[in-house]
Amino acid sequence: MILLFTDFGWRGPYVGQLHLVLAQESPGVPVIDLLHDAPSFTPRAAGHLLAALAENIPEGALLVAVVDPGVGSERRALLLEAGGVRYIGPDNGLLAPLAARYPESRAHVIEWRPQRLSRSFHGRDFFAPVAARLALGAVVMTAPLALDEIVGSANSTMLAEVIYIDGYGNAWTGLPVSSLPPDPTITVGATALPRAQTFSDVERGQAFWYENSAGLVEVAVNQDSAAARLGLQLGDPVAVQSSCDGIVPRPDRL
Amino acid sequence: MILLFTDFGWRGPYVGQLHLVLAQESPGVPVIDLLHDAPSFTPRAAGHLLAALAENIPEGALLVAVVDPGVGSERRALLLEAGGVRYIGPDNGLLAPLAARYPESRAHVIEWRPQRLSRSFHGRDFFAPVAARLALGAVVMTAPLALDEIVGSANSTMLAEVIYIDGYGNAWTGLPVSSLPPDPTITVGATALPRAQTFSDVERGQAFWYENSAGLVEVAVNQDSAAARLGLQLGDPVAVQSSCDGIVPRPDRL
Amino acid sequence: MILLFTDFGWRGPYVGQLHLVLAQESPGVPVIDLLHDAPSFTPRAAGHLLAALAENIPEGALLVAVVDPGVGSERRALLLEAGGVRYIGPDNGLLAPLAARYPESRAHVIEWRPQRLSRSFHGRDFFAPVAARLALGAVVMTAPLALDEIVGSANSTMLAEVIYIDGYGNAWTGLPVSSLPPDPTITVGATALPRAQTFSDVERGQAFWYENSAGLVEVAVNQDSAAARLGLQLGDPVAVQSSCDGIVPRPDRL
Repeated sequence: MILLFTDFGWRGPYVGQLHLVLAQESPGVPVIDLLHDAPSFTPRAAGHLLAALAENIPEGALLVAVVDPGVGSERRALLLEAGGVRYIGPDNGLLAPLAARYPESRAHVIEWRPQRLSRSFHGRDFFAPVAARLALGAVVMTAPLALDEIVGSANSTMLAEVIYIDGYGNAWTGLPVSSLPPDPTITVGATALPRAQTFSDVERGQAFWYENSAGLVEVAVNQDSAAARLGLQLGDPVAVQSSCDGIVPRPDRL
Repeated sequence: MILLFTDFGWRGPYVGQLHLVLAQESPGVPVIDLLHDAPSFTPRAAGHLLAALAENIPEGALLVAVVDPGVGSERRALLLEAGGVRYIGPDNGLLAPLAARYPESRAHVIEWRPQRLSRSFHGRDFFAPVAARLALGAVVMTAPLALDEIVGSANSTMLAEVIYIDGYGNAWTGLPVSSLPPDPTITVGATALPRAQTFSDVERGQAFWYENSAGLVEVAVNQDSAAARLGLQLGDPVAVQSSCDGIVPRPDRL
Repeated sequence: MILLFTDFGWRGPYVGQLHLVLAQESPGVPVIDLLHDAPSFTPRAAGHLLAALAENIPEGALLVAVVDPGVGSERRALLLEAGGVRYIGPDNGLLAPLAARYPESRAHVIEWRPQRLSRSFHGRDFFAPVAARLALGAVVMTAPLALDEIVGSANSTMLAEVIYIDGYGNAWTGLPVSSLPPDPTITVGATALPRAQTFSDVERGQAFWYENSAGLVEVAVNQDSAAARLGLQLGDPVAVQSSCDGIVPRPDRL
């Protein structure tokens, strides 16, 4: 099984051309479009999103991750084995949160090169063909890489920012609920938010935070857009306060 | 074959995670994304849209329907057998128009529960696994339910409102053309619309209504957005006047 | 393998219903969504986009092309064999650029008719069933057509206009780089653009043109929307100036 995680969006021929390559080069292998609207110019935030989604990816799967504003420049291509899944993507920070979350990960630099390589579409010309080859059990030339040599590997396993805004306007943060202090207070802007279990627990129009289906702190408004109502944008900081202490330092600085 | 009908949109990991569950739990069963932009907070309108699309769904198929603003609250999950198709979704009005359109339907409350159930994503954790099990012929615990106990079952087979606005700006109504009086006049806002067979029958920029490809009265403008040009929104009432009589009461009140 | 190229967008049940027909009528044949946001009302521009993407389509494939503002009116349906691929679509200019790019093409008028044909959704009721039949090797009634009788066949192999704006705001032109004079200067509006190899070759916010992954001149801005920054729209003219001569006549008038 090959999963796709990109910032291509559903407009244009980009996703379709990935599928076309995979259908030709690994026919019969199921392809799943996991997400195609990862934040485009912030591989670090996209990487925290990917790491949170990784928990539901079955062992043995391959995932092609493309958030690659530096496409065509000199940057390495990585193969990361983490949690039984093989991840393929640019070495620009996108895969670093996975390596942090799965300390038993093994990283490799992909040294294989295709016969034809456009300057602007390595998803189609490079990453998808690598995934197809690996899915078929073919050998792909790689060289081992220490985890701490991955770009962005100094990242912790969390990011106290808004890392993604979904189609409903819910603001995902890079904070796994499992990593928070007890009885945490979550604040965005000047607003300290109440915690709820899910949407239907609060009044319509009420802002709250909850543990979303990927295990992250998500800021939401029942039947409305949290991003619009609270003026939230990608990269906005999120503060975590413990019930016992004062304001906790932003976890990414711990 | 498993069809998906949701309000998830194509942004975010939601549709992808449904596919991921189905690929794991019913591998090899084809999955069709029928529609992912059903109206989010009005299961009743979404249900009329689904009922109109049901005619083209082949017998033997399964369909997962998720428009579920009350996810996580106490509401039943339904299995509805209608027209040879099995529909799985929340008991919040979404499946009621199907039951009204197919009086021979049989309804069941789904009593099976998964080992892990998030509070906010029953599509992934509950409805998709149920569909996968049924697709494989496995037993899923259910209890019979009388059709008139389905939430929203007092609905008639039509809804004289705008129930959906598509990507072109065409406004779908909940009125099956087959249920209209002879030579009907269709009025939205203060505008009585001419009838046409299709777009190319009228001048560019002309508003009209026609029987769309799902058998419903649809308000459209040739090569433009009817929603923008006529200021139409979800829920706007649509009046039907017969050629013989005066204004007919709104059909949903008959 | 059946590819889909339409202007349906991902909203609504349109793409899903194509898949539903294909899953029923040619089960097991892979279906690839190549692109669903072709320009809606300009089959000519959409045709130049399709012709540019054709290079990556493998021999033996079928492609259903639907950009069909005249659906329901009297216009022929074509089967075009070009470069080893069979294209199925309306005879409204959409397939003409393919015929110009592949002079060895063979064209046919499709004379087969389905039992049920809505006035507004020939993609579902006609073009997809034709593709399914051809994919299975069944006979579909056709009559030969001379290439110069295809609507729009006077088109050259290029179109000096913006033919597509993608989800990033990049403006694709109908100019294959392989057809340009040496050291060309590309001008849109009053702006003569520098050439680059790819995004990361220029500063953030810098406008440029480059040969995109489909071989076309594309106007782009690094990490921003060229359409927004330069005020570009579909149909905007693009001027090509050779380094030796003065302004070259617009190539589509050569």
